[in-house]
Amino acid sequence: MVLALLGILKHGQPNDTFNTKRLFRDAFVEFVATTLFIFSGTLSASSTGKKLALGQGAAEDVGRVLPIAMAFGISIMTLAYSIGHLTGGHMNPAVSLLMFFRRQMSATKMIFYWIAQFVGAILGASLTWGCVSSLAGDPVLNGEFKRPPFHLGANTLDPTMTAGNGFLLEFMGSVVFFFVIAQTALDKRGIADSMFPAIPIGFSLVVVHICLIPFTGCGVNPARTFGPSIVVCMAGGDCEAVMGDAYWIYWIGPFLASWAVAELTLIMEMDVDGVEAAT
Amino acid sequence: MVLALLGILKHGQPNDTFNTKRLFRDAFVEFVATTLFIFSGTLSASSTGKKLALGQGAAEDVGRVLPIAMAFGISIMTLAYSIGHLTGGHMNPAVSLLMFFRRQMSATKMIFYWIAQFVGAILGASLTWGCVSSLAGDPVLNGEFKRPPFHLGANTLDPTMTAGNGFLLEFMGSVVFFFVIAQTALDKRGIADSMFPAIPIGFSLVVVHICLIPFTGCGVNPARTFGPSIVVCMAGGDCEAVMGDAYWIYWIGPFLASWAVAELTLIMEMDVDGVEAAT
Amino acid sequence: MVLALLGILKHGQPNDTFNTKRLFRDAFVEFVATTLFIFSGTLSASSTGKKLALGQGAAEDVGRVLPIAMAFGISIMTLAYSIGHLTGGHMNPAVSLLMFFRRQMSATKMIFYWIAQFVGAILGASLTWGCVSSLAGDPVLNGEFKRPPFHLGANTLDPTMTAGNGFLLEFMGSVVFFFVIAQTALDKRGIADSMFPAIPIGFSLVVVHICLIPFTGCGVNPARTFGPSIVVCMAGGDCEAVMGDAYWIYWIGPFLASWAVAELTLIMEMDVDGVEAAT
Amino acid sequence: MVLALLGILKHGQPNDTFNTKRLFRDAFVEFVATTLFIFSGTLSASSTGKKLALGQGAAEDVGRVLPIAMAFGISIMTLAYSIGHLTGGHMNPAVSLLMFFRRQMSATKMIFYWIAQFVGAILGASLTWGCVSSLAGDPVLNGEFKRPPFHLGANTLDPTMTAGNGFLLEFMGSVVFFFVIAQTALDKRGIADSMFPAIPIGFSLVVVHICLIPFTGCGVNPARTFGPSIVVCMAGGDCEAVMGDAYWIYWIGPFLASWAVAELTLIMEMDVDGVEAAT
Repeated sequence: MVLALLGILKHGQPNDTFNTKRLFRDAFVEFVATTLFIFSGTLSASSTGKKLALGQGAAEDVGRVLPIAMAFGISIMTLAYSIGHLTGGHMNPAVSLLMFFRRQMSATKMIFYWIAQFVGAILGASLTWGCVSSLAGDPVLNGEFKRPPFHLGANTLDPTMTAGNGFLLEFMGSVVFFFVIAQTALDKRGIADSMFPAIPIGFSLVVVHICLIPFTGCGVNPARTFGPSIVVCMAGGDCEAVMGDAYWIYWIGPFLASWAVAELTLIMEMDVDGVEAAT
Repeated sequence: MVLALLGILKHGQPNDTFNTKRLFRDAFVEFVATTLFIFSGTLSASSTGKKLALGQGAAEDVGRVLPIAMAFGISIMTLAYSIGHLTGGHMNPAVSLLMFFRRQMSATKMIFYWIAQFVGAILGASLTWGCVSSLAGDPVLNGEFKRPPFHLGANTLDPTMTAGNGFLLEFMGSVVFFFVIAQTALDKRGIADSMFPAIPIGFSLVVVHICLIPFTGCGVNPARTFGPSIVVCMAGGDCEAVMGDAYWIYWIGPFLASWAVAELTLIMEMDVDGVEAAT
Repeated sequence: MVLALLGILKHGQPNDTFNTKRLFRDAFVEFVATTLFIFSGTLSASSTGKKLALGQGAAEDVGRVLPIAMAFGISIMTLAYSIGHLTGGHMNPAVSLLMFFRRQMSATKMIFYWIAQFVGAILGASLTWGCVSSLAGDPVLNGEFKRPPFHLGANTLDPTMTAGNGFLLEFMGSVVFFFVIAQTALDKRGIADSMFPAIPIGFSLVVVHICLIPFTGCGVNPARTFGPSIVVCMAGGDCEAVMGDAYWIYWIGPFLASWAVAELTLIMEMDVDGVEAAT
Repeated sequence: MVLALLGILKHGQPNDTFNTKRLFRDAFVEFVATTLFIFSGTLSASSTGKKLALGQGAAEDVGRVLPIAMAFGISIMTLAYSIGHLTGGHMNPAVSLLMFFRRQMSATKMIFYWIAQFVGAILGASLTWGCVSSLAGDPVLNGEFKRPPFHLGANTLDPTMTAGNGFLLEFMGSVVFFFVIAQTALDKRGIADSMFPAIPIGFSLVVVHICLIPFTGCGVNPARTFGPSIVVCMAGGDCEAVMGDAYWIYWIGPFLASWAVAELTLIMEMDVDGVEAAT
């Protein structure tokens, strides 16, 4: 990672910040889209949880996995279709870092995107809280939801797992997701040439959520982890649960995967036919 | 909203009503499609509810969320594919209002669409009632379904929620859905240039349903709310339940979102490259 | 329907049978695809039923609806992608009748397709039986599955429904499905011009299954109804259950919908712009 | 099969191994993709199993079928989108054999792919084990998961089924899947001409998993069967369960289907119009 950064400092990155108007417009678009993404995703945790609480007396049910996975993954698909032509449709700081490593954007622009993404995540989680603020009276949890209910969908590591398990899950889940992003969006010899890859990218996130929700809650996106956790803390919720000892796995896992996938996909793009690949 | 209306009065709208034959054809197509949409969506509430009633003795189960969400969302996708080239495939008065605000259709044409959509919704809900009129004998609900069964899928606000929660849910759910519609169908620099956006639009409605079904039943469409509720009332069902104190949220929420999304997406289409955007 | 037939006799149909080699090839392809479709669909009824029987002690669970709906609907999508360029990918006698009414194929060719579809359905259901012939020992059903297990997924009308309900369900379900087929495959001004409509057609069948499975088992395809029922009867299963008093609804419903949708979609294709529509 | 091999020996196959650099690059890409595919698929078996274990006290639930089916099937779709332009995106030795029988690749290249696929499957299953190594304390299974938990998603034949049932299931499931692959990827008169067929191929695997998971666990891919089983054996797990008497069905079934589908789809591509088909 240090080597990659040094290489970038030496070889340079795109200078995409001269158009200030466009820079702010793009950051604004990322902010709006991340808000809607975090809102849709985290609200699904409450909606599916409430159903269960009233119906079956158990907050843990395999029936929650697919609806939540689709709320996150399909939201990315529909929002990427909506803003892809404007900003690329990242909605994820680690994806922006991947694009920086692959020299698709400058460090300055990445910082703008990061701010937009983290602020959008806070607003999205706050809107979720506004929507479910009255939830109470669950007969299972002693008549009360912990406020804010369902930790607003914040990521928590399942107590049976070690932090090492959690890190490997967040790292590998991010690798799977980012691998599909890099290969379908950046390799111009592939489908990136003829279609906008919202379907493979969104559905890949669905798969990663199916695999990770029961273990880590599925982050693979530091903004998605940060937004609900900070709102839970500010709202007097169980701050220790949502920013516990394993909080680092949701940051190091995805960001490390950005670097690993950038390197791996560059190897795969190597020129094997004696012709310079157009990337 | 008032300002938007004043602006429209001043600057004008498309004059798309000179071809009377086409106007009536389009309204007829919207009527047919809305009928089939409301039929498919509301019938799924009864079909999944019946399974549960016989099988698990509980009308509340997280397993109902995804099938109902798909019945509504995927129906919009398949019907938009079917009639998009004729009418745009609205099947939703608030979507028609959004198109009016974005100056894609005249007020006259919008009124024609509205009438077609509301009448279609009544017919769709009536057909659902005809299909399930014999449902009875549920061992859980004291041996009887309330007729019409499952309120024909009418929207009701969950009793644990305040009307304020409900309004925010309907407003934000509509914002998510309409944002995807406006960005994928109207921005000619995006995918609207190369494909008909039925996939992002339909799947976005799936996500919104996953998030809203357990709380408001998910309206985000005044015709979808109106049709089943009026049929339940006319059929001697529990009129108070389906047109209760919170009935307004299903009307103000979506219509207000039409205005908010029209303004928001216009901002996002601003010209940042010194070239006039082609919209 | 009689009028439509008379009109066809007077005005003629495509003469697509002069190439005998092609006629037999197409019938063979329809036979293979219908076999695979019926196999996939009916096997899912046993696979999801077995899971439940062992796990929850109840053959009725809302969790079965979506997997079965996808097995039928998505199979149609993938097989239509596979053979659409050869035969159109009907796999359904009522769809072939719709194509006949819309003058896309001759009566002779339709008869060839019908024979291929019914024989393929018998083979598909037989293969399902071969796959699950050993299923036994279910603790719920007194230690034994009725052989063949799960009636091989044959259509049966839920005992709480009248035949009138069942007929309306099969008719309306077919209308929804066939409407999408006609509009996306035949109207050359729509998406039929630029893409093969396997996605809207397949996903429409998913929605119809979500709505109909708990009530009629979801036929909307006389071959799909016929195949499993005849194999159950020949295999000494409960013939009365799978060819009961309501057996007619699975035949009259879809075939009547073929005529209704042919007429309805012809109205929608009327020339409103003074230019002859290219269909 | 012997005849097909003899025919190939006589008529020759593509000489696609002269470019050694490309041969190794392609094998490396197949290795990476198979690793990610096996990781995503087998991890979903643990993730959905854990949910159930804690929530409902039963490892058998119909709610597991669809998430696992999507983890496998949709992974193939997203990875095929990612690497299809480089290697074709097989990730399955029996698919490579199908391509060999259809003369799309040489025996040498197939061997390279096979090695890459089997090694990738071992690495993928190992990564799954690393992710869930701490799972323990399940109150249902006497306080302990059998290590490695959930057999790492290895294929096992349900005890109520005979090996004959299992073989027919694996053979027919493979036929359905490979039929869609051959028709959508190889017949240049079909959709292969205008799109990369990742959607029909991936969703076809979803359907096959819905049908086979409760019976055989769904192999239809010798590498997918081999990876988890060898890791379970090496890790001191229940080797007899994952490499039992019926282990052969996961090898003979798919490989035999490769031959059957190669022959069947060649028949379907016969020239019926007097013009040589371009395949």
